[in-house]
Amino acid sequence: MDEERFERQKRFILEVDKEKKVLRQTHISGYERQEDDAEHAWHMALMTYLLKEYANEPFDLAKTMAMTLIHDIVEIDAGDTYAYDAAAHKDKAEREGKAADRIFGILPDDQRDELKGLWMEFEANETPEAHFAHAMDNFQPVLLNDANDGRDWVAHGVKRSQPSKRNEVTRLGSEDLYRYAEKLFDKNTDEGHLKQE
Amino acid sequence: MDEERFERQKRFILEVDKEKKVLRQTHISGYERQEDDAEHAWHMALMTYLLKEYANEPFDLAKTMAMTLIHDIVEIDAGDTYAYDAAAHKDKAEREGKAADRIFGILPDDQRDELKGLWMEFEANETPEAHFAHAMDNFQPVLLNDANDGRDWVAHGVKRSQPSKRNEVTRLGSEDLYRYAEKLFDKNTDEGHLKQE
Repeated sequence: MDEERFERQKRFILEVDKEKKVLRQTHISGYERQEDDAEHAWHMALMTYLLKEYANEPFDLAKTMAMTLIHDIVEIDAGDTYAYDAAAHKDKAEREGKAADRIFGILPDDQRDELKGLWMEFEANETPEAHFAHAMDNFQPVLLNDANDGRDWVAHGVKRSQPSKRNEVTRLGSEDLYRYAEKLFDKNTDEGHLKQE
Repeated sequence: MDEERFERQKRFILEVDKEKKVLRQTHISGYERQEDDAEHAWHMALMTYLLKEYANEPFDLAKTMAMTLIHDIVEIDAGDTYAYDAAAHKDKAEREGKAADRIFGILPDDQRDELKGLWMEFEANETPEAHFAHAMDNFQPVLLNDANDGRDWVAHGVKRSQPSKRNEVTRLGSEDLYRYAEKLFDKNTDEGHLKQE
């Protein structure tokens, strides 16, 4: 074992532990509390394994699971940006780019390049792996939100068109899950959880 | 999309959300609070990807990551059994077997068999995938505990020989990580965090 190499890997493992303290707007099933980034990533990685049959294109499973596990790591520095917060999205790329340099920079150079590359591939969203990872990133909170009677949507006064806009990104990864999510948005609009335009 | 099939997958995804409420004895880095099973599994899956170079044998990466993601799912019914609680370990297998039948039974039959099989493979611990997943299961809390000045060991009055016994399981997956953990146990014994025999 190259001890200097391992110390960098260990520092990274302990640094990313902080994801457990980054809270999202989405609540866990039962609405007891907000979920954190580590829980969200765990759920996404498991869903990637479980729902892979619905992908539009074949994809590399291990790579996509790794992508889901690290996709929010930059939020340790940059914080969670709520999906429908237009102002915060303006400087999101700059904040997250700096965070990626610092956090992935803890790793040995080869793994820094590999994991930062995986994160950049997720952000660019141009490969089958990134497409399916984004589908999971969007679909996971939709399932939780629907299970919680849309309370997160109600709390933020979300309009019917807003999740549908995000759902176009889900569509790149999975037409099936895109259509299923649209049905859930219709149902939640009928039930008054999403605002009519 | 076969809607009946998807409804079972969705029910499973929402059922396992309860892992976010199963608390472990280990505290997150900084000791603010206990970590939960979902966070632990996320950390293990990411460590599987990051530390794969230290495995004794080649292993299937996607399969092992999936194994780490689901390995504690039975604790939704059976609860977390602390590593050094001998009494609770007596009926652990029976409690967890029943939980596996119920929880994996929510899935479509083919996925029930696949994921329950993955969990049973982890429990049997006879394949390279199970060996490395167990190494991560043991090594992850060791890193957190060491980073927290051994406070979980102190709280439970853990003796030096106890983590070493578990570490023999880590050794099946990774001689390198086994040796590194032994050094951490020695250091924590010198510092008074683990009890001399």
